[in-house]
This record gives sequence, C-alpha cells and structure tokens, in this order.
Amino acid sequence: MIPYYITPLNERWHKPLAEKIDNLTKPKGSLGRLEEVALQLGMIQQTLSPTLQRPTNIVFCADHGIVDEGVSFSPKEVTRQQLLHFLRGGAGISFVCKQHHFVLQVVDVGVDWDFDPNLQATAPMVEYYARKVRKGTDNYLHRPAMTHEEMERCMTIGAEQVDTCRQQGCNIVSFGELGMANTSSSSVWMHLFAHIPLQECVGAGSGLPSEGVKHKYEVLKKAVKNYRGNGSAEDLIAHFGGLEMVAAIGGMLRAAELHMAIIVDGFIMTACALAASQLHPHVLDYCIFGHCGDEAGHRKMLDAMHAKPLLNLGLRLGEGSGAVCAYPIIESAVCMINEMDSFAGAQVTKYF
Amino acid sequence: MIPYYITPLNERWHKPLAEKIDNLTKPKGSLGRLEEVALQLGMIQQTLSPTLQRPTNIVFCADHGIVDEGVSFSPKEVTRQQLLHFLRGGAGISFVCKQHHFVLQVVDVGVDWDFDPNLQATAPMVEYYARKVRKGTDNYLHRPAMTHEEMERCMTIGAEQVDTCRQQGCNIVSFGELGMANTSSSSVWMHLFAHIPLQECVGAGSGLPSEGVKHKYEVLKKAVKNYRGNGSAEDLIAHFGGLEMVAAIGGMLRAAELHMAIIVDGFIMTACALAASQLHPHVLDYCIFGHCGDEAGHRKMLDAMHAKPLLNLGLRLGEGSGAVCAYPIIESAVCMINEMDSFAGAQVTKYF
Repeated sequence: MIPYYITPLNERWHKPLAEKIDNLTKPKGSLGRLEEVALQLGMIQQTLSPTLQRPTNIVFCADHGIVDEGVSFSPKEVTRQQLLHFLRGGAGISFVCKQHHFVLQVVDVGVDWDFDPNLQATAPMVEYYARKVRKGTDNYLHRPAMTHEEMERCMTIGAEQVDTCRQQGCNIVSFGELGMANTSSSSVWMHLFAHIPLQECVGAGSGLPSEGVKHKYEVLKKAVKNYRGNGSAEDLIAHFGGLEMVAAIGGMLRAAELHMAIIVDGFIMTACALAASQLHPHVLDYCIFGHCGDEAGHRKMLDAMHAKPLLNLGLRLGEGSGAVCAYPIIESAVCMINEMDSFAGAQVTKYF
Repeated sequence: MIPYYITPLNERWHKPLAEKIDNLTKPKGSLGRLEEVALQLGMIQQTLSPTLQRPTNIVFCADHGIVDEGVSFSPKEVTRQQLLHFLRGGAGISFVCKQHHFVLQVVDVGVDWDFDPNLQATAPMVEYYARKVRKGTDNYLHRPAMTHEEMERCMTIGAEQVDTCRQQGCNIVSFGELGMANTSSSSVWMHLFAHIPLQECVGAGSGLPSEGVKHKYEVLKKAVKNYRGNGSAEDLIAHFGGLEMVAAIGGMLRAAELHMAIIVDGFIMTACALAASQLHPHVLDYCIFGHCGDEAGHRKMLDAMHAKPLLNLGLRLGEGSGAVCAYPIIESAVCMINEMDSFAGAQVTKYF
C-alpha cells in the first residue's frame, strides 16, 4: 500500500476557535451546525479565519462486472452515456456545479468502452481525464473484482487527481461517482466494515422494484459467502470494490493528508469514506458529510461513523450532487466566522 | 379586516411541470426535494421556467409586554441594540443575506425605544423603515397585547413592505423577526391554532434554563386561562400577538396575493404562517418552509401544517436566518428545471 501520512486534527486550535465562535453576536450555540462546521474547518486549516478556495467535485467513473447478475435497474451503457453528458454540461451534477462555481473533474478509471482518444469536455469548468485502469471490474459473485495491483493503481490515480486540483488552488474537494451497480459494492462494504446485517444494507439503487431489491440481496449474500480472501480491509476493498470507488478512497486519503476539507456525498461515497477509515481512521476528521439520502441503510451507516449529514433532501442521483448542494451551508459557516461581529466589536450586550 | 384575495395554486400547471421534471436526465424522483420545490415554484409563478428575482428578507422588530414576567432569557434592550446592529451589517442575518445577495429590510413596528429620526442603514443592501405602531405590546397575562385597530395597522404595514419589495422586482420573500419574548406568543398561537397541548409548545427560546422554561409555561398557561375574548382567529392574534409577528402575517398574506414565493423561517415565523392560515388557508400554498430548529414543538407544528422544512441545522437565531440559509436549495431547484437536459435533448437513454 502507498503510505499516507494523515494526522488527527490539531487539538491546540479547538479552544481559540470555540472562543471566537462563542463571542460572535448571537446566543451561544444558536447557529447550530454552522458553528460545528466552522470549528472543524478552522481545525483542518489551522486558522481562526478559514477560507474556501476553488471548490472541486471529482467524479470517478467505471463499470461493474456484478451488473451481469441483474442487480441494477439501469444497464451498463448508461455509464458511458452519462460520462459524455457530464462533458457537455447538461447533467444533474452540471447545474449544481455551475451554481456554486465548482470545477468538475470527470475521471474515467474503468468505463467499459473505448472513448475517442481526442475526447474533451466542452462545458466550461469541466475537465476530462482518461485514466482507465481496466474496462470494468470482474464479477465478484465468482472472483475478485480487481487485483491488488489494480486497486493500488486506482488509489494512486485518485490521489493524483487531488494533487491536480490542489495545485490549482483548491482547498475543499467533494467526490462523486458514476457506475451502474455501485450501490451493490457499497452495501457489501457497509455490511463488512460497519458490521450491519446485509439485509439492512441493500436498497433500491437507481430504481429497483421490491423483487429486484430481494434479488440483489440474494446475489450479494452469495457473493459474501463465496469470498475466500484474507479478510483484511485491503482485500475486501479489492474484492468487492468498484474501480471508481477505490479511486475515491485514494482521493479522500490524499485530501486528508493535504489538510483539505472533504465533502462526502451520498450512500456510495459514505461507503468509500467508511472503507478509507478502515485504512486510516483519521481521514474522517477531514470529512464533512453533505447529505443523507433515502437509500436503505444510509442513515445507519452514518450513525455507525458518528457522522451528521448537513442535508436530507431525498436526493439519490450520486455524481457528487448531494455534496455540492451542501456547499453553500459550509460557505455560510465560513461567512459566519469571518464576517459576524463579536460582542466586543459591536455595541451589543452579551446577554443573549 | 383588510380583504386579501388569495387563490389556491392553479392545478392546470401541475401536469406540464411534473412532465418536464420527469423528463430531465435523471432517475425519476432522484432529485427529491429539489423536484418538489421546482414544481411548487412553477405553480406559484405559472410557468415551466420559474425564476428567482431580487430575494428580500424582511425583519420586523418589536418589543413584548410579557417580557416583564421573566419569560425571556434576553432582556428587552437587546431588541434595540440588535436593530442598530442589523443596520451596521454585523449581525447573524447580515452575513447570510450578503452571501446570498438578499436585500434586508429592517422594519421597526414596535421597539420600545425612541430612535434618532435620522437613523439610516449604513451597510449595503440594507434598508431601514421607521413604522412604529406603538412602543411594545401590553402584557397579555393581564390584558390584550394590542387593540384590533393596532393589529390592522401592523398587518397593513407588513403588506406595504411587501409591496415595496415587489415594486423593486422581488418575487421571493422571507420574513424574520426581532423581539425578546416572541417565542412566548408563538407557543400560545401554536397551542390555540394547532390544538397541541401547551406544554409541548413551550421551549427554551434564546437560552432559558429548564426552570425558566417551566416558569414560562406557568405564565403562558395563566395567560391563556385569563383570556376573555371571542375566540376568533383575529382576536387571538391581537390578544397574544407581537406587533412584529402581526406585521409578518400581513406580509405573508400580501405576498401570497401577489403570487410571490414565501420562505418561512424558524419557530416564530412558522407560528405566523399558522396564524395567517387561520385567516386564509391557501397562504400555505405559497410557503416554502426553510428550517426546522430545535425549539420544542417546532417539528410538531410543522407536522400539523403538513410542512416539510428544507433544512434542519439546529439554528435558533431567528432574524430570518434559517430561511435565507435555505435559499440556495431553492435556487438549486430553479437551476435544475431550467438548466438540466431532457432525455430527448441529450443522447441519454431513458433507462434510469
């Protein structure tokens, strides 16, 4: 494994930040989650005046061999179509990135399609990276989804994509995914890493009816039963992973190492943060959870990680959309700590 | 009472809006609350392409006679100090209005203080209106808070403030309040209008300890017992109201009449929307509920109105802060319906 040097948050910053926040002209604690986010960002950035710079959403894209088992409502070709759609700027993630001035990195790490080598993004602030490791994973009902070497390559790519946006000045990054059947990998990781019964981890994904959910559960139960690896976190990640999900894990670990804030999207990215925390627990110190969706078990997985998402809007699109939608709330926290008067500065009695 | 002509939403727009939203390139329903808000806004504005223009937050300010009974953690002079603070631009509502480019109207309808007649706002995009009806309400433990004539004047002022921002081009308005002890009026209205036991309606306000909450409950129980009016919605509003809350009711009714979208803030503004709906039920068709706070009973009051707030961030500042924080989510809904490709327009198969 690539070594990552992820430090816990520096506790020395807790007290001065909490004091600054408590002395803003408001009843103590009355700005709720905004106060918590401001504190966390200040500790991540080790400053009393945190900032948000060049926010970037990195969407990793790949296909999944398990799709052959009929676990996904949408067929594999949607992965290819949607990747192209991202580059043209008309998708779900496109409008919300535009709204909040996010750079959108679209990274092919494993779509089962040979794209035109001259393919480029045509929408503004969208960047395309052709970094395919292989064309989709193997079907983990029968064999490991990828080799350990492929896993390492995906993680390195994830880390390098974060380096790229860091070099452009970014200090807050969200991750998204595109890959039909990737709620299946997420459910298995949730089951294995958070020790939650598999049945509570399996949901409708992009729109399975209830018989479909039952079939998905049966397939995943069999896949877990068929597993013959050594049970280490690395092996479970490689065996059940998606290439795009492993890249996100690498990206999260690198972002934490660089003291960047990470906005975690919905069910799949929460599963990736959970998997990343099996390798380096302190990665979670850098995570701001953006959204809790309706996918079965998402709330339970968040609870297992003691994570409190900012939003709960019933989104289930993926692509990083829940994370980017939560961005203005994080921005409010930054405006609060930097722009609000203190009791000393304003002529307001500290009664309230 | 001033007549208001508030129509229910025009059902003719439901189907074409729902069709447009279902044909955007995403699994049906996968943008959750954004889809609901886009539908509501389209029906309010009677268009397939709703817009948001010159968003304005109107904060009505007034004092409360009931404060003499020790029902508020913060003393009355905080009302005056905070009003001046709004005009200078350093308060909680200031940074979030700046962040989302809101006009902030600060309207004195009843602060118990003689402000300098030359008082003006110094912060950009902040407007001050001196429209005092009287210096604070009477103590409704013993007598009506205000006369019916004063109530009418407050409602008219609220309506006129909405006319002012409408003339400036605004089509979405939020309301906030400033007035020590106004959670007390809100609790009583909630109890009387939503038929919820008073005990479940009384909370800590800006920071009462638990004995304080108990005392507040005892005072309000006695006030309700002492009430000798005719029990009509108008009379209950005048008897237990705050001047700033009655102005907000007038503003909400006028905004609905003008087919403007209303963003409802926290506990106090939810109580005002509830009171407004006792006069004109269809005012709720125009309301987007911004935030559910931690104040005891807020969730129950929202449930009684079948209202689903967009955010739940533990805010309890008032001033319209929860409503303005929710604005970018509403904006996301508008971006979605206007900017996302349809399946027909993009080359994406409608599989998902």
